Amino acid sequence: MVKYQASAIDRTFSALADPTRRHILLRLKDEPGLSVSELARPLALKLPGMMKHLDVLSDAGLITRAKSGRTVAVTLSPGPMAEAMEWLRHYERFWTVSIDRLAAFVEASPE
Amino acid sequence: MVKYQASAIDRTFSALADPTRRHILLRLKDEPGLSVSELARPLALKLPGMMKHLDVLSDAGLITRAKSGRTVAVTLSPGPMAEAMEWLRHYERFWTVSIDRLAAFVEASPE
Repeated sequence: MVKYQASAIDRTFSALADPTRRHILLRLKDEPGLSVSELARPLALKLPGMMKHLDVLSDAGLITRAKSGRTVAVTLSPGPMAEAMEWLRHYERFWTVSIDRLAAFVEASPE
Repeated sequence: MVKYQASAIDRTFSALADPTRRHILLRLKDEPGLSVSELARPLALKLPGMMKHLDVLSDAGLITRAKSGRTVAVTLSPGPMAEAMEWLRHYERFWTVSIDRLAAFVEASPE
């Protein structure tokens, strides 16, 4: 019997399942320490919506926030992604095999 | 402005964010073509709950179902995971750097 329990990897995959949150992570990859308002600027989001996304990312351990005066700096914390990637790696040989088969099929086909 | 649109990668990450669905995928990796009832057996799930999970996996393109008489055989279709893995790969150098730093710190610390 498998019992449901929201684990770290559940929260990671769930946090990544939203394009706005992935966009935030991509920006933080290139520009660490952006403020919340700098992150919000290109997004069609009001502050409460933005904070909700940042809370999901923070709960998943994917970002950290540091307050300095009136500014909150946000930093990427990619550790949990390593576990998600390890999980996906179990399947890598399957899609590699599929691509190899497809390549063999294409090569064997008459033009 | 980033506009919300439920894309293939959203559905993939969302499908993977549940332990029951990951359990189903892990079983199908080792035992391709299991029937729905064989998949349901070790899970504390009634058929409607099971079908709901299979629908999510199918909508994400992670499984295919083939009906033969009264039996539905389920097969893994790992292609969408390749895209998810590609996305995560952008961050790989970050956690590698973190692990290297941690290792350097541990090695430099007195016992």
